[in-house]
Amino acid sequence: MPVPNHPSGRPILAAELLAIGSELTTGEIRDTNGGDLAHELDRLGVSMTRLVALPDDLPTVTGAFREALGRADLVVSTGGLGPTPDDLTREAIAAACDELPSVDPTMARWLRDIFDRRGLVMPDRNLKQAWLVPSATALPNPVGTAPGWWVDRPDGRVIVALPGPPREIQAMWRDHVLPRLHERGAGAGAAVRTLRLTQIGESHVAEMLGDTLLHGENPRVATYAKADAVEVRISARDERGGPSGGRTAGEIVAETASAIEERLAGHVFAHDDETWVEALGVALHGLTLACAEIGTGGTLSALIGEAPWFLYGEVTAPGSSATRRDRDLRAAARRVRDIAGADVGLAVRARERGKDTQVAIAVAIGRRTTLGRRLAFLTGPMGRRRAALAACAELWARLSERSPGVS
Amino acid sequence: MPVPNHPSGRPILAAELLAIGSELTTGEIRDTNGGDLAHELDRLGVSMTRLVALPDDLPTVTGAFREALGRADLVVSTGGLGPTPDDLTREAIAAACDELPSVDPTMARWLRDIFDRRGLVMPDRNLKQAWLVPSATALPNPVGTAPGWWVDRPDGRVIVALPGPPREIQAMWRDHVLPRLHERGAGAGAAVRTLRLTQIGESHVAEMLGDTLLHGENPRVATYAKADAVEVRISARDERGGPSGGRTAGEIVAETASAIEERLAGHVFAHDDETWVEALGVALHGLTLACAEIGTGGTLSALIGEAPWFLYGEVTAPGSSATRRDRDLRAAARRVRDIAGADVGLAVRARERGKDTQVAIAVAIGRRTTLGRRLAFLTGPMGRRRAALAACAELWARLSERSPGVS
Repeated sequence: MPVPNHPSGRPILAAELLAIGSELTTGEIRDTNGGDLAHELDRLGVSMTRLVALPDDLPTVTGAFREALGRADLVVSTGGLGPTPDDLTREAIAAACDELPSVDPTMARWLRDIFDRRGLVMPDRNLKQAWLVPSATALPNPVGTAPGWWVDRPDGRVIVALPGPPREIQAMWRDHVLPRLHERGAGAGAAVRTLRLTQIGESHVAEMLGDTLLHGENPRVATYAKADAVEVRISARDERGGPSGGRTAGEIVAETASAIEERLAGHVFAHDDETWVEALGVALHGLTLACAEIGTGGTLSALIGEAPWFLYGEVTAPGSSATRRDRDLRAAARRVRDIAGADVGLAVRARERGKDTQVAIAVAIGRRTTLGRRLAFLTGPMGRRRAALAACAELWARLSERSPGVS
Repeated sequence: MPVPNHPSGRPILAAELLAIGSELTTGEIRDTNGGDLAHELDRLGVSMTRLVALPDDLPTVTGAFREALGRADLVVSTGGLGPTPDDLTREAIAAACDELPSVDPTMARWLRDIFDRRGLVMPDRNLKQAWLVPSATALPNPVGTAPGWWVDRPDGRVIVALPGPPREIQAMWRDHVLPRLHERGAGAGAAVRTLRLTQIGESHVAEMLGDTLLHGENPRVATYAKADAVEVRISARDERGGPSGGRTAGEIVAETASAIEERLAGHVFAHDDETWVEALGVALHGLTLACAEIGTGGTLSALIGEAPWFLYGEVTAPGSSATRRDRDLRAAARRVRDIAGADVGLAVRARERGKDTQVAIAVAIGRRTTLGRRLAFLTGPMGRRRAALAACAELWARLSERSPGVS
């Protein structure tokens, strides 16, 4: 159970996210911070009451902070910490908390130093980046000029104001926000684990898990059909037992995960946020790869082309002269492997047939070259992306059967 | 000016979007519908008061509908229209409007027909997809079993409830929502145009546009630095003139756009939602393309690999044996062009040097092969993606100088 380290005794159980910027509400820029932070907070066992994107309008943003403080223990905002008149997150928090901002001398010196080192004179308007309200402390920004705010309300609620750029948020969250949230007891008594499955459908997974598991309270088990995997998410809270205390959240999640992994053996290719690139890296175990893709529009290279074990890829349109030499897909897998001097060759060909995409996949490892076929059920770009994912799944299965210890 | 076609006389000027689903507030699934619809509404001159993602919790969702109806003329929701107990958008709208839902016989028949045609018996729980409240009419779903709702409130406010899958939303929006919004006057008297620029920085664009243009009220002109372009967005409303009526929004936007295009000639590669693929398709004017990319991790093939004029691409890791044959980038551009039997060859090589990515680009058109160099300022995946965009920009510039009529 959360052990809040604050005189108010308020635990941090519910949070609300405010993404601030008119470029978000006009659809000019898509917010990715909200989802990333929701995911982070979910892992701490903090439930999200809502995610809100707001325009740069002072009354609107002030009102949103007030409402959020009425509902949640923690309010996290992103954006609006720049030096321009449009950047009004500080003003909104000050108004919502009925406090007055003033320039903090230490922060002002830090800001001036940044400009000095660049040989620039700091414009006056930048001074508002050195503001604080009495209940706020600054969150250092290691990669930008906009410090964040950690605001401790008298009733134990917390506001965390972060800048907008994802890179700055990540650094500030990891180094300064997460440790303080842990101090305040967030994440204590809660645990989450996600299993990522391949070569099996969501309804089949649900059937194998059974109603007892899927409708339990602790652990909670849920399935999600994502583009690149079927996911099983297991979350738990500490049991409140008798004198012995019951099982911890971590124990419950670990026991449930290993029971499910046993039942779904051979399908779990990754855990938590692990991607196909990471899972294939583990399965390749030091081997290198070359790929030929025909009719998939570069979706396979896009998926794995940045991996260190990816040496060479060919992307060909169906029917082009470069394609005609690859009638035999097994030969193509060997050909690209040998051109690149790689250990493993992978060739995939996708053909759209009405609503379906027919996918043929060849994998060449050592002297053995295998050929598989699959059906992807969507035409167009999604069908092509599914073809690339099918190729990853096939490669992973062939590599895993080669070395049964790796899964 | 909007001419609302409703007895209340309320124009549709402000909207709020509610995306409903716990998978969004846990960060399991990222909402893309909100941004898409915000962009659609922005083009109609409807301003967005906020975008909200909510968990599947009846009191929370009901409260959000009530609050949104207090602020906006139009409330658009996505998700929560399925047949399961978790799908509670209909229940929330009914509660927020103080109305009772009942089964609509026509919709029930339509639903049963869908199951009949698949040889299935409709489960009882699906019957709630045939619900309506008295102030709602059904929005047909051409690609799923979840009809939407159009709810006309007595005060002229409107609720539009859409399903969650983007494909279903797009069809329903285009065929059934947009026509009704036009009938209600949305989009009348407003116009928007976006110019997409290449080979120029945002601050340089701002300087060339000047303060008068950037701080005007009608038209409003704003710049955005996006990953793939610097954008200039021009929006306007009809002038309220004397007896002659003043200029229309469309006229103001067209005049402003052509003045800006003249000032920024040679940089405007696309308009509105046009992508690099579309702009290059216009510039290629029937020619076909083959690409060699070295050290860019497949980002170029990912960007343009699905275009019909893309015949062949090679993706190689720096330092692999396949790369060594391409020391001379101009020769590589010609080599891939000839392998693929394409008209144009493009070769790009990216090298990470500390914080920068150095990019060399060769373009082979007919007998002429040109070599250009660029610097992309971010390392890692973003640097590689910028290298691919730099290659597109270089190709576009070479094609445009070849045929000055195309821009």
